[in-house]
Amino acid sequence: MNMFTDDSVMLHTDLYQINMGETYWEDNIHQKRAVFEVFFRKLPFGNGYAVFAGLERIIEYIKAFKFSESDLTYLHEELGFKEDYLAYLKDLTFTGTIRCMREGELVFHNEPILRVEAPLIEAQLVETAILNIVNYQTLIATKAARIKHVVGDQVAMEFGTRRAQEMDAAIWGTRAAYIGGFGATSNVRAGKKFGIPVAGTHAHAMVQAYKDEYIAFHKYARRHKNCVFLVDTYDTLKSGVPNAIKVAKELGDKINFTAIRLDSGDLTYLSKKARQMLDEAGFTDTKIVASNDLDEDTIMHLKSQGARIDMWGIGTKLITAYDQPALGAVYKLVSIEGENGEMMDTIKISANPEKVSTPGLKRVYRIINNLNGKSEGDYITMEDEDPQSEERLKMFHPVHTFISKFVTNFEAKELHHDIFVNGKLVYETEELQEIQQYVKDNLELLWDEYKRTRNPEEYPVDLSEKCWENKTRQIAYVKQKVAEALNKK
Amino acid sequence: MNMFTDDSVMLHTDLYQINMGETYWEDNIHQKRAVFEVFFRKLPFGNGYAVFAGLERIIEYIKAFKFSESDLTYLHEELGFKEDYLAYLKDLTFTGTIRCMREGELVFHNEPILRVEAPLIEAQLVETAILNIVNYQTLIATKAARIKHVVGDQVAMEFGTRRAQEMDAAIWGTRAAYIGGFGATSNVRAGKKFGIPVAGTHAHAMVQAYKDEYIAFHKYARRHKNCVFLVDTYDTLKSGVPNAIKVAKELGDKINFTAIRLDSGDLTYLSKKARQMLDEAGFTDTKIVASNDLDEDTIMHLKSQGARIDMWGIGTKLITAYDQPALGAVYKLVSIEGENGEMMDTIKISANPEKVSTPGLKRVYRIINNLNGKSEGDYITMEDEDPQSEERLKMFHPVHTFISKFVTNFEAKELHHDIFVNGKLVYETEELQEIQQYVKDNLELLWDEYKRTRNPEEYPVDLSEKCWENKTRQIAYVKQKVAEALNKK
Repeated sequence: MNMFTDDSVMLHTDLYQINMGETYWEDNIHQKRAVFEVFFRKLPFGNGYAVFAGLERIIEYIKAFKFSESDLTYLHEELGFKEDYLAYLKDLTFTGTIRCMREGELVFHNEPILRVEAPLIEAQLVETAILNIVNYQTLIATKAARIKHVVGDQVAMEFGTRRAQEMDAAIWGTRAAYIGGFGATSNVRAGKKFGIPVAGTHAHAMVQAYKDEYIAFHKYARRHKNCVFLVDTYDTLKSGVPNAIKVAKELGDKINFTAIRLDSGDLTYLSKKARQMLDEAGFTDTKIVASNDLDEDTIMHLKSQGARIDMWGIGTKLITAYDQPALGAVYKLVSIEGENGEMMDTIKISANPEKVSTPGLKRVYRIINNLNGKSEGDYITMEDEDPQSEERLKMFHPVHTFISKFVTNFEAKELHHDIFVNGKLVYETEELQEIQQYVKDNLELLWDEYKRTRNPEEYPVDLSEKCWENKTRQIAYVKQKVAEALNKK
Repeated sequence: MNMFTDDSVMLHTDLYQINMGETYWEDNIHQKRAVFEVFFRKLPFGNGYAVFAGLERIIEYIKAFKFSESDLTYLHEELGFKEDYLAYLKDLTFTGTIRCMREGELVFHNEPILRVEAPLIEAQLVETAILNIVNYQTLIATKAARIKHVVGDQVAMEFGTRRAQEMDAAIWGTRAAYIGGFGATSNVRAGKKFGIPVAGTHAHAMVQAYKDEYIAFHKYARRHKNCVFLVDTYDTLKSGVPNAIKVAKELGDKINFTAIRLDSGDLTYLSKKARQMLDEAGFTDTKIVASNDLDEDTIMHLKSQGARIDMWGIGTKLITAYDQPALGAVYKLVSIEGENGEMMDTIKISANPEKVSTPGLKRVYRIINNLNGKSEGDYITMEDEDPQSEERLKMFHPVHTFISKFVTNFEAKELHHDIFVNGKLVYETEELQEIQQYVKDNLELLWDEYKRTRNPEEYPVDLSEKCWENKTRQIAYVKQKVAEALNKK
């Protein structure tokens, strides 16, 4: 059996981070200032934008950045790390600066979501957990926003715990879903932990337990004034809906016959028929909740067929991001302190052109047109640039540079905020409700063309001229280094 | 901000469980004995079998089954549950009996993996968390076994933390991967928590930090005797491999030049060329590790093209079960105590024939042919049957009943074990290494036809005659109830 009973998140990292840390430490470059950026190369689900989520959890993680006694014992006894290095790790705390977008910020391909500026070893150790958090939570917030886009003004509810990829995914996933626009969750723990509204009625098992649907509904109504009856245990139209109506009529004012829930069968057909039956019985205010493997595509089809569904319960397809269960955000070194204390930009070259990173300390601005309140695109600059000071901003495609435009009369909104400064938390996290509202407000900045769930227009993410030139220069530098190395042989 | 700072897993459930519990409690049927079974209807990934994982985590969860003070406060103040019911919940403990397969058991469609026999309210409350755990861990253990099947005797390593769906998935997923046959993980926390071997070398960032690959490899080698050099930061064949060889030659016996790692580009071409370069330099024992979005299909293709890869690092596609990120295991009531204390079987009917549950307390046997040591299929019986006592066992397809065979000279191996008996943990969990070995041994029971990763033969999961008749009878009963209800109107 396992000898370690405590479980700090400090070791929630890849072994190579601790290995590299040892090399840096031994070579005495571990304190060199290094800058890493988190970004993804491709928007998930073919969507036109992503919704950033994960900052609250990252803050929680960074606050807990400390090797425990048993972590060090494990590294020594089981993995063979030497005591001199471990003695150094023992006292290690996070002293770096983290700048990051707000949760709920709309984020696009190839722009830094988060930036860590820290002593090299610290910046390296936090990589894995930060990516783990950002990748999942951003994925789900984005998926939720897609679904909510199709659901429109109706209510979308997260019902996926049983299919989530283990417990953390269930609760952090439903938090991300709420950020993306969902109105409630079935997970009570998430409700308690995050203050998300919790929704739920009864299951098929209750009807089975009573072996009689009519009795089961009656019994349920005794303690639950707001009744949502699940009507598909035996036969939706022949048994479930008639029993629900019968019970509601018998109980009259004693209950609110809030809704029925359909969980199987042809939801368009059943919802239309059920609506008709409810209306004919006088229950015109009783809503119809539907669930059963729903996602944005299915919901759009149901709606286009005139399904009479008022509320949507979404499980598996949301909580696992079923059609693309991973976001590929990466963490790349963009700058490092040189011999004489100056910062030197770095690049990662690849045979794959879109995998080439953009070097240097950068800022991200959203360029908002003051005339119509819409965003013209995002604009990535070097750290010392201020696009707001320019009269007329030239925005051009970072690869197909001939695609360009000039923007005047704009607001350049900076998207990064200080979270930790020299190890100290300086950011006040927002209420979840505020974050959800922030997403809504942000989506107003985008033209509809970027918000289609299928084949949206590509949102411009441009580099400033200075940023673009720096990248070009770095590529040439690396190519030359490789050529020189070849010649030496 | 959130007012509750503690976070028990007791609320890791759907609200409807607590709602139904209230109805049962108010109606005084909450103590009725109820039996629920966990099963899935369809094997994941089109695979011929699944590998059960999750029991250790379920045990951990059941042991923690207790509402905390703040859970009750939350239910009262935020969700409006009344004090009488909460007073009851306050003292609730788990007093039921859980029977379950061993972790690492091969499991098939429509057979009970786990059975909860408990007072109705307790059995209901544990549903969501049990499914959450079983669905994810079984999915990943199965995916890992598929990949390991293609990897064969070579080493497969789990490298997926950064793409996992939040933290629990990273660590419980890598545990499941180890069960399925993986040899190591990059996640240090999982190594510490579960005793899994941990693997890792250095990242591109280290090469970038030194801005010189040759120097970076030298520096790394100073503290790491076993050197695995990542060779694709700039150019694999022009820079990475030559630098690795140069450093290894210069350092001679001071290091073990264990391996190089390829993480991008055409892995077949690069591995062949790199192999040739290593061999020509005399490093014939140096291995080649490959990673980059690998899964069982890609590995099979690389192998079929003669890629010279010795070890495989698998991330995203494994840890998220990318091609099918959810297993659909469900939890169905199969029997409940009647008015007079007798157990009455229950069924869930559906318009979808394969969604009809199999009623009653059941046992699952694996029927092993003594002549060849191979499994003839699984055989589900009612609780009181003993297939071993039969001379000649009739096995027939539960839907297409004409497909049948007789088996003689067999061992009927029962697959369920007592885990909790009347609330008391009676099961001793196994070492992870034993569980991994158990999977290997079990796979030997299956003919190769069931182990193909594409279009395997369907493994027989049959019902005993008694079990089949009971199901048929229950279906007729429910149909009649619905018809009667219609006539009454």
